[in-house]
Amino acid sequence: MRVDLNADVGESFGPYTIGDDAAVMRSVSSVSVAAGFHGGDPSVMRRTIALARDLGVAVGAHPSFADLQGFGRREMQLAPKDAEDIVLYQIAAVAGVAHAEGVRLAHVKPHGALYNMAARDRELAEAVARAVFAFDRELFVYAPPRSALASAARAIGLRVAGEGFADRGYRHDGSLVPRNEPGAVIANVEEVVTRALQMAVERTVAVVDGSTLTIDVDTLCIHGDTPGASAMAAWLRAGLASADVDVRAPGA
Amino acid sequence: MRVDLNADVGESFGPYTIGDDAAVMRSVSSVSVAAGFHGGDPSVMRRTIALARDLGVAVGAHPSFADLQGFGRREMQLAPKDAEDIVLYQIAAVAGVAHAEGVRLAHVKPHGALYNMAARDRELAEAVARAVFAFDRELFVYAPPRSALASAARAIGLRVAGEGFADRGYRHDGSLVPRNEPGAVIANVEEVVTRALQMAVERTVAVVDGSTLTIDVDTLCIHGDTPGASAMAAWLRAGLASADVDVRAPGA
Amino acid sequence: MRVDLNADVGESFGPYTIGDDAAVMRSVSSVSVAAGFHGGDPSVMRRTIALARDLGVAVGAHPSFADLQGFGRREMQLAPKDAEDIVLYQIAAVAGVAHAEGVRLAHVKPHGALYNMAARDRELAEAVARAVFAFDRELFVYAPPRSALASAARAIGLRVAGEGFADRGYRHDGSLVPRNEPGAVIANVEEVVTRALQMAVERTVAVVDGSTLTIDVDTLCIHGDTPGASAMAAWLRAGLASADVDVRAPGA
Amino acid sequence: MRVDLNADVGESFGPYTIGDDAAVMRSVSSVSVAAGFHGGDPSVMRRTIALARDLGVAVGAHPSFADLQGFGRREMQLAPKDAEDIVLYQIAAVAGVAHAEGVRLAHVKPHGALYNMAARDRELAEAVARAVFAFDRELFVYAPPRSALASAARAIGLRVAGEGFADRGYRHDGSLVPRNEPGAVIANVEEVVTRALQMAVERTVAVVDGSTLTIDVDTLCIHGDTPGASAMAAWLRAGLASADVDVRAPGA
Repeated sequence: MRVDLNADVGESFGPYTIGDDAAVMRSVSSVSVAAGFHGGDPSVMRRTIALARDLGVAVGAHPSFADLQGFGRREMQLAPKDAEDIVLYQIAAVAGVAHAEGVRLAHVKPHGALYNMAARDRELAEAVARAVFAFDRELFVYAPPRSALASAARAIGLRVAGEGFADRGYRHDGSLVPRNEPGAVIANVEEVVTRALQMAVERTVAVVDGSTLTIDVDTLCIHGDTPGASAMAAWLRAGLASADVDVRAPGA
Repeated sequence: MRVDLNADVGESFGPYTIGDDAAVMRSVSSVSVAAGFHGGDPSVMRRTIALARDLGVAVGAHPSFADLQGFGRREMQLAPKDAEDIVLYQIAAVAGVAHAEGVRLAHVKPHGALYNMAARDRELAEAVARAVFAFDRELFVYAPPRSALASAARAIGLRVAGEGFADRGYRHDGSLVPRNEPGAVIANVEEVVTRALQMAVERTVAVVDGSTLTIDVDTLCIHGDTPGASAMAAWLRAGLASADVDVRAPGA
Repeated sequence: MRVDLNADVGESFGPYTIGDDAAVMRSVSSVSVAAGFHGGDPSVMRRTIALARDLGVAVGAHPSFADLQGFGRREMQLAPKDAEDIVLYQIAAVAGVAHAEGVRLAHVKPHGALYNMAARDRELAEAVARAVFAFDRELFVYAPPRSALASAARAIGLRVAGEGFADRGYRHDGSLVPRNEPGAVIANVEEVVTRALQMAVERTVAVVDGSTLTIDVDTLCIHGDTPGASAMAAWLRAGLASADVDVRAPGA
Repeated sequence: MRVDLNADVGESFGPYTIGDDAAVMRSVSSVSVAAGFHGGDPSVMRRTIALARDLGVAVGAHPSFADLQGFGRREMQLAPKDAEDIVLYQIAAVAGVAHAEGVRLAHVKPHGALYNMAARDRELAEAVARAVFAFDRELFVYAPPRSALASAARAIGLRVAGEGFADRGYRHDGSLVPRNEPGAVIANVEEVVTRALQMAVERTVAVVDGSTLTIDVDTLCIHGDTPGASAMAAWLRAGLASADVDVRAPGA
């Protein structure tokens, strides 16, 4: 039994700080590093990757739409080729900075609106998959299980790590309960740990309607920019460890 | 006898076009590709690199200060570490996109104000050299002969290609005649070719005061964003060929 | 009988030039000036406005989504309040620079994707209208006749100038024939002039299916960034003049 | 006896928060609002101005070089005309958003590197002064007493508010002790209040070498982005009030 614990990091920018990356990174097995399009800058990126290396944490790229003010959370309509090229550029930047720090890039996880759109839009998903494949076919793609992104990545020959959210409610079809509906966010730490264990060990999740859904989760997401992220990461790590679940990155 | 003919390319951006890259690339042996900080965008960059590959032209990175409006030509005071990190980021981006297109990055040539400042400022020159070295110690650094940048690059263990400007007047100390002074720019094509041959074959340059200066030129620069760049490149290529000078990239 | 002839201008940026504003401005009665979000920069903006003033051309603001690489043509999902605030900021910038040049702002015309989305999305249209109204309730809003934007602007108490495209095909419902369908673009200059006259004089347009549609056109659009824009503007101006149609800005 | 207490505010950006503007604004008489070039965005700007209005605090514009990553603190070499135009654009944006919120702009205070460079560089100072004057000759310019900026502003016909820093050490020539030298920063709150009173009442400042310097201070600066800014502002306000110094904006 094993699962990856992943956090989004490196999203500070210039004079602006978001998240407590150093604390979060002590509990996770992999991080997705911002590439400068929704957050992050070259110096933040380099420091973040060096720290991940020192802590033995796997490093992935976290490409986004170019929207610093909106933190990459606003949907944009790009031609698939344009989306492919900005994803490739960002993977290249993170991978190259990682290379300079002696780290080999391990995965790619699209950020925010790009992630959500690629999860449901086949053309965009294929564009993302082509960018990853063109750069390095050994990279894992982090994607929601049963999403267009997971499917496009597999179709082109990439390995996929199914991503689960232990602190979010699920609907019957495997999608997340929208944030403005009841049951969207699980605040209780014990419950989050219980759900994480259920995902990692039984490979199911309790659905908001009371049923149980089989779900292929290989990596659990910690939102690095939310308050309490480091405490949540520590709880999850401890909870998984105590259940003998091996916390490690997909390729490790 | 050999010399490299190099052009700055890939400086178009989004809806904006600068230069006639496709024409210029037919005559040069290497190109320096903009990385998005002073010009260029991920799609322009990728297309440009693919075209260079198809034409057998060597590809380098052309990092700059982050100043799109000023086209990277305005001096900025960065802490050396910050300069190092933006140079590394840009090398990484170009190298990674090139890798996806089956091309290995061959050199780094700083752009505009970054080039001029690194030519004279030892701390900045060392920062640039550290970034190149951290990424790939096989890369050539294009720099003015006898500049701080050339010296810093050699000191860290990098190979340097001394850059000459056949269409610019030189002063006694090897620096260029400022653009607002007489003799700054050579407009006559035959004279430019003559000067290029003098640099490549005799390894000297005629100084504006009438004397002759020994100068170590390994690469001749074509400004891709100036009108007539492609014609100038063609003339230079033909002139060099007719004098049996081998036009090829430094590492080729 | 009167109609406004309007062109989008001031879309050059830093080293990059788009359009031949000086030529186009000799034929139009009003211009919509880019505000720096999809094109334009503070120096381009100021020069453009000073030129419009010298030529007696009315000046409006041309706000956009913040998307320089996509030239404001890619749809973005903004919260209405965020859209309102970026529109207000851009109106303020153009109006203030105009004020410094002795020009009073006359209208607001959203650009590209913002224009198209506000034409059909009531919430976004109201956000745009609120921004205009908060700044200056005397401003005209340029909008497609019968669009959500026209309706929202009128509802809040603003005057609307219905915009027509003499070089584009219309469908039965008053919308434009999409660019990838037959009849989308009218290339023949005489036909464009005929259509412009029909819009200005008879206030109808020939629909692609052969029928005729009544349409309230107060302003005709010239795309300043397309080749031949200045010639088209001159033809239209001459054609309208020869039919005794008064070419002038809505408020003039 | 009167003095202005001024804070830099509105420097948060998108998802990023800097400073506790709401707290600082309770103690000051004027604020300088970021215009989006070094910090701030249209929504932050509007909220900040509305809050200042509600608290009866005067609003000024805080224009900067375009350098979000460097927070406007890195020197850039702009042609004077380019500097003039970006300052005008930013004044226009802040003034126009303020106008929409029912507030009349009261002053302009350049930010960071632009402030420091304009304080010593006559050409740049004149460019800034021209921008302010072109927009509204009633605006105050905040500038170091005896600086090139103060002098250029007066020469063109603008009113100047001399700015003092109660928490910074001064040298014999009226310049600040550089931050890396002893005596640069006064940490003790009582001492800062004492120095503020000395500036406001006696119009002198204690120099780091023990002497006393006559200095024309009309406004005291609170750095809104430093920790403890709101407490410092409250202490200064209370200290000035208890000495019967009237705390109000220059034009109030």
